Amino acid sequence: MLTFVGLGLHDHTDVSVKGLERIRNADIVFFEGYTSRLGGTSVKEMEEFFEKKVTFVSRRDVEDNPGSILDPAGDKNVVFLTGGDPMVSTTHADLRIRAHRRGIRTEIIHGASIVSAVCGLSGLQNYRFGKSCSLPFPEKNWYPLTPAEVIRTNLSMNLHTLVYLDIRDDRCMTVHDAVSLLEEMSPRCGFSIPLYIGVARAGSPSPDVFCGDASKVLAHDYGPPLHILIVPGPLHVMEKEYLELFGGL
Amino acid sequence: MLTFVGLGLHDHTDVSVKGLERIRNADIVFFEGYTSRLGGTSVKEMEEFFEKKVTFVSRRDVEDNPGSILDPAGDKNVVFLTGGDPMVSTTHADLRIRAHRRGIRTEIIHGASIVSAVCGLSGLQNYRFGKSCSLPFPEKNWYPLTPAEVIRTNLSMNLHTLVYLDIRDDRCMTVHDAVSLLEEMSPRCGFSIPLYIGVARAGSPSPDVFCGDASKVLAHDYGPPLHILIVPGPLHVMEKEYLELFGGL
Repeated sequence: MLTFVGLGLHDHTDVSVKGLERIRNADIVFFEGYTSRLGGTSVKEMEEFFEKKVTFVSRRDVEDNPGSILDPAGDKNVVFLTGGDPMVSTTHADLRIRAHRRGIRTEIIHGASIVSAVCGLSGLQNYRFGKSCSLPFPEKNWYPLTPAEVIRTNLSMNLHTLVYLDIRDDRCMTVHDAVSLLEEMSPRCGFSIPLYIGVARAGSPSPDVFCGDASKVLAHDYGPPLHILIVPGPLHVMEKEYLELFGGL
Repeated sequence: MLTFVGLGLHDHTDVSVKGLERIRNADIVFFEGYTSRLGGTSVKEMEEFFEKKVTFVSRRDVEDNPGSILDPAGDKNVVFLTGGDPMVSTTHADLRIRAHRRGIRTEIIHGASIVSAVCGLSGLQNYRFGKSCSLPFPEKNWYPLTPAEVIRTNLSMNLHTLVYLDIRDDRCMTVHDAVSLLEEMSPRCGFSIPLYIGVARAGSPSPDVFCGDASKVLAHDYGPPLHILIVPGPLHVMEKEYLELFGGL
């Protein structure tokens, strides 16, 4: 049996009671830290809290050698932990497909995700978001303008855009990195971005939500990761009021 | 202090460990059951599990008389429970604004939301969803075509649409209700919907995911609520494979 458990946003106490019960009943517990990060805990702290050994796996471990997860799941209770909600990422959908093809039963225990958390933190209404996008660190000869194009399309329809910021083994993209990139990209796509909302450490005891134009946001210290960015469309009355009170508008 | 705690998707064990701790330390616990529903528990079961009295509040209680929540939060620890993630709904953003204006400290403890859960259940990728929409029960002289227009726009951009189904005091909209309505609406908006994905009881031990054209979906028994509907855009290879295995495609 393979159970996907979402750990939620920040630390080991963000897991659901149901998820914790699955972990404590598991024979083997894997934790992947590449599609998301938990800023408020570590493998060691998880092991103490869960009272279980937790084996960290990298993207390469899972994608190149899914058998390392699936082989034991044939006759043992294997729990696969991820930050946020477990199945938002394609790589895990692939793992569930492979498990099913081997005749392994699967279960998903959902967790809090940044996808919904940004609504509460920013006051922006869920149904006013368009398609989201990911902003990768640019590389040599690779500087995709896709994220700016998604934002431009959403803005043209008066919709907000959630911008996922790149997570690498050695660094996490910050709001400053992202805004600097988008300030370069947007004129090349023929538009400008009037307002950014940076969100840091969602789900932690000290989340930071701060909005403004590029210069105001670039002058603000968001503190440690994880960061995420929203490019809002025109704000409704209550969204504006909420951001004035909770987002420095 | 006013703490918003998201209960997650299905029953009282879907709350996070952190949320449970806030509930157990609360002086007063309110629970609203109008923006979402928990199919797998009751106020009585919550009270037993939380070891706290839980006061059910209606939309009218909260919107017409927010003082009933805010007055005690001036000097007591008040916890406000909602299904899903607590702040997706505008009405709760309003409550947090009012609390702040009275000088009451607020905190949000996030919970698993259908917004992200549908990805894991359907295999559809989060970044391929456009704007979502709500489908209300039609009333006399009130039959808005907005949901169909949102779906048409998303389909024209090859995006998926999450369709929230109406929740009333006396009834919850089913996948069948919704598909019947959309089959009437879509020709009036000049398009047709080739594929529906119905999802029932997300987060429960027996979620049901089943997709097909209108006639196939209308012939399928989804069982008890809550239901939610997805109108997918063109499927990517892995989305298709996932739905073949887990959604009856």
